[in-house]
Amino acid sequence: MAHIELGLDETSLPGITGLLRFRPETAGPLSALAEVLLRGPHPLSAGERELIAAYVSGLNECSFCRDSHSAFAAEQLDEGMALVDQVRADLDSAPVSEKLRALLRIAGAVWESGRKVTPELVERARAHGATDVEVHDTVLIAAAFCMYNRYVDGLGTVVPADPGAYVEAGRRIVERGYLDLA
Amino acid sequence: MAHIELGLDETSLPGITGLLRFRPETAGPLSALAEVLLRGPHPLSAGERELIAAYVSGLNECSFCRDSHSAFAAEQLDEGMALVDQVRADLDSAPVSEKLRALLRIAGAVWESGRKVTPELVERARAHGATDVEVHDTVLIAAAFCMYNRYVDGLGTVVPADPGAYVEAGRRIVERGYLDLA
Repeated sequence: MAHIELGLDETSLPGITGLLRFRPETAGPLSALAEVLLRGPHPLSAGERELIAAYVSGLNECSFCRDSHSAFAAEQLDEGMALVDQVRADLDSAPVSEKLRALLRIAGAVWESGRKVTPELVERARAHGATDVEVHDTVLIAAAFCMYNRYVDGLGTVVPADPGAYVEAGRRIVERGYLDLA
Repeated sequence: MAHIELGLDETSLPGITGLLRFRPETAGPLSALAEVLLRGPHPLSAGERELIAAYVSGLNECSFCRDSHSAFAAEQLDEGMALVDQVRADLDSAPVSEKLRALLRIAGAVWESGRKVTPELVERARAHGATDVEVHDTVLIAAAFCMYNRYVDGLGTVVPADPGAYVEAGRRIVERGYLDLA
């Protein structure tokens, strides 16, 4: 049970979805940020951006966000959940492009602290073709999931009883996006 | 110098302000979130909410955000910067209400990890009169500054050469808010 009285059935609105329903004033900007970062027009595919979100959520051990965004990434990557699992298990050997690997390393630094992002990490991403917008958005996606993860866990929200719910939510996100999530 | 080419004079748009100008698509939700959390109608005063933001930014050692939100809190608290300094130096002895102290302890837990927020921390805040919305917004303010701090430092933005700039920015925020920050 969540740390606060959400006034709704938590099992049918698990994780962040119950919080968005509880406080519509903050739900607007939170959903809009996810929509532009993860689904807006971009040189990185939606699957690649969801992979960054899943990776950071795994580092934060936020099971709701990790399992949600892993499912959302798998739904949108040709290689599916196998690739998500490989990235989360061992980034060094995972079969991703060198650009994406370098961006995921930047995301891992941001997870620890913004001050851990070095010019060398950024240079490596740039050497593999990353643009300023890709570096910017990687930093902001990683930073944003340091927020979403803390929000979801800091209020003690519940996870879905049925893990199949993540796959179903992934199909809904691909179809309708983040703006009507709650 | 920032890790990416912002295409603007970084010294006149330090910290997050240059990033908001660089990427207007994400600036919208980021500014809207700060506006509703720190300045929307609320049982906690704007000064108290800025104090939570300053406290978390201090824990993250993000000097731009820490000094900005310390100035914004000081501008809106009767006790001014003396109280901000006391809270940041020693929360246990700082002369704040027991409710605000308990909320700041929740914010400190969120800073570490969402999973560090215990039912006991929430119960203590509630025993001192905190409502569900106050607990919710404290968790989200703390989580949001774990994002803003990582965003500002993760992209290597510069701080103002003149510390007086924070005081001036504080007056502008009180007068005009976060929506036209960049």
